[in-house]
Amino acid sequence: MPDAAQTPRENADVTLEADVFARGCTSRETLQTVTGRWGVLALAALAEGNYRFSALRRRVDGVSERMLSQTLQALERDGLVVRDVLEAIPPKVEYSLTPLGAEIATRLVGLIELVESRMPEVWSAQQKYAERRTDRA
Amino acid sequence: MPDAAQTPRENADVTLEADVFARGCTSRETLQTVTGRWGVLALAALAEGNYRFSALRRRVDGVSERMLSQTLQALERDGLVVRDVLEAIPPKVEYSLTPLGAEIATRLVGLIELVESRMPEVWSAQQKYAERRTDRA
Repeated sequence: MPDAAQTPRENADVTLEADVFARGCTSRETLQTVTGRWGVLALAALAEGNYRFSALRRRVDGVSERMLSQTLQALERDGLVVRDVLEAIPPKVEYSLTPLGAEIATRLVGLIELVESRMPEVWSAQQKYAERRTDRA
Repeated sequence: MPDAAQTPRENADVTLEADVFARGCTSRETLQTVTGRWGVLALAALAEGNYRFSALRRRVDGVSERMLSQTLQALERDGLVVRDVLEAIPPKVEYSLTPLGAEIATRLVGLIELVESRMPEVWSAQQKYAERRTDRA
């Protein structure tokens, strides 16, 4: 329920339960961060193991540097991803999941596997939907 | 893997497995439909029971008529939601989940409950993140 525009400290009224169906609840923003186009893929990739930025960008095929950087920042801000600077020349930056990030990523991987495994059913539905549209026209 | 721009019939090569990490795979589009800002909330609401359009719009607080309509169309197209026109004057339109839609919605409700229950942890992370930013400035 606290509004996203306020700071967490001022509005974290723990007597209220988070409710993603309420438009002002910050849990909706966090849900969006983890289910957004790139958030879901970044978390699912990091469930496979730690990644450096460039390797993660190759894994999440199609993401721009800017979008991946923004996505990782939002995930870090919400405490789901840790950004570690490893001592090396040049320094290496590695991303990994926090325990909460790992819990969420596990759920997302389950969802992804379900969707991937049922795509033939989805394609069949898409075909019928297109045929119904054609019939009407 | 088939490209979203092609029709399902022409490209549903069932010898290939769907892979959301491949940028051209249509499973990525379906994943986006179910995890998109309004898709996830519409599916989670329909997991509670069938809804008429106007009631669903009240439940998914903040969604515009146009966005909810587009969201439901995409979910119907992918075979996750059924749109029933009930005989009445004026006719009533009711939305419900298909079996596949219900399976996906169950996963989404689990994810939502996890996120909602852990928001105090997220708020605490957001506060620490803001403080680190301030220290650097």
